[in-house]
Amino acid sequence: MDSVKIIEIKKSVFADNEQDANSLRQELKEKGVFLLNLMSSPGSGKTTTLIQLINRLKDRLRIAVMEADIDSDVDAVKIREATGIPSIQLHTGGMCHLDAEMTRQGLDNVELEQLDLVILENVGNLVCPAEFDTGAVCNAMILSVPEGSDKPLKYPLMFSVCDMVVINKMDVLPYFDFNLQKCKENIHLRNPKAQVIPICAKSGEGTEVLAAWLLEQVKHWKQQ
Amino acid sequence: MDSVKIIEIKKSVFADNEQDANSLRQELKEKGVFLLNLMSSPGSGKTTTLIQLINRLKDRLRIAVMEADIDSDVDAVKIREATGIPSIQLHTGGMCHLDAEMTRQGLDNVELEQLDLVILENVGNLVCPAEFDTGAVCNAMILSVPEGSDKPLKYPLMFSVCDMVVINKMDVLPYFDFNLQKCKENIHLRNPKAQVIPICAKSGEGTEVLAAWLLEQVKHWKQQ
Repeated sequence: MDSVKIIEIKKSVFADNEQDANSLRQELKEKGVFLLNLMSSPGSGKTTTLIQLINRLKDRLRIAVMEADIDSDVDAVKIREATGIPSIQLHTGGMCHLDAEMTRQGLDNVELEQLDLVILENVGNLVCPAEFDTGAVCNAMILSVPEGSDKPLKYPLMFSVCDMVVINKMDVLPYFDFNLQKCKENIHLRNPKAQVIPICAKSGEGTEVLAAWLLEQVKHWKQQ
Repeated sequence: MDSVKIIEIKKSVFADNEQDANSLRQELKEKGVFLLNLMSSPGSGKTTTLIQLINRLKDRLRIAVMEADIDSDVDAVKIREATGIPSIQLHTGGMCHLDAEMTRQGLDNVELEQLDLVILENVGNLVCPAEFDTGAVCNAMILSVPEGSDKPLKYPLMFSVCDMVVINKMDVLPYFDFNLQKCKENIHLRNPKAQVIPICAKSGEGTEVLAAWLLEQVKHWKQQ
């Protein structure tokens, strides 16, 4: 198969990321493209979740994915093979997050006019990506059961900037000391408005609820 | 019980971290204190592993722990309660890593003259801490089974700076697509000299091998 497009992301020169992120959001609004920023730790299941989500939505929305990674391209290839949608790889060259200008460098390489939804899979890191507004309309994150239900207390900023917290790997709940109720309480301590959806990305269980939520977000935003 | 000592870490002013890290290593050498820098993603089991390790070594080495965290102090309290050794909490105030000067701010708060080994539990992040030399004699990391055996390919710098890679949560191996042999190969692609020890921190299995390795490192370094 053809290799995916790989974009080497350059360090941003903009001093004011917040302003730049707002400009990017405005541009995307004008083009009618919803940008979802998906964050998590390494190995929490971002790519597997995306594949489930995209396969449930690709007949109703025109979707593209930007996979940010330090230097590999396995995720973009995997997404394209499993879903058939356009997928590009953003190489951050060791950088631990994406800001709005770096996100824009990726968006310059997708056909925005032909899309409803772009999903950015951010670098696997619960700390730094939370600090930088990418220009996304919506932030979502995945916490997986093996990581522990105390993580909202230890990484508060990440949980406070996310509108959606997906709890993944629910299939292994019996083997871990993970308290779902306590986890929800910990999330809501940081962010009372956050929605929480438990899923198992491997089997697909619960991803229909996540897909319905995302479809609703996109539709609602387009009508605003 | 008494609360643990909490140190609010300030941003470093040193321009040359590499030089500063070398100075710190030299100072520690003169004092005969071995500094171990332990890194991993959130939820891989750093604190549980440390408790096992310390309880196996505390009769043979004088140990203290510095727990770096964005803003909680649960880990330092847990370590002290479970092991009885001195443990302090370093608050990074949102910063995603520790460099040598930040590590020094922590070390200024432990009784170095009365110690053989200080263990720094770095911020839970596979990206940023790998980029900053803390002044430690030895870098170790934990990768847990649920995170996946492909992580050495996706976070190459972290694996290349670590002398020891601990594979934790071996008890849940049957429930995950984790290939231990492949994982070792991926680690050695990045770092042919890295040692790999599989453990289950929860039950303690394998931690006697890890304790023996660390004891040997400390003894060897003291004799150099």
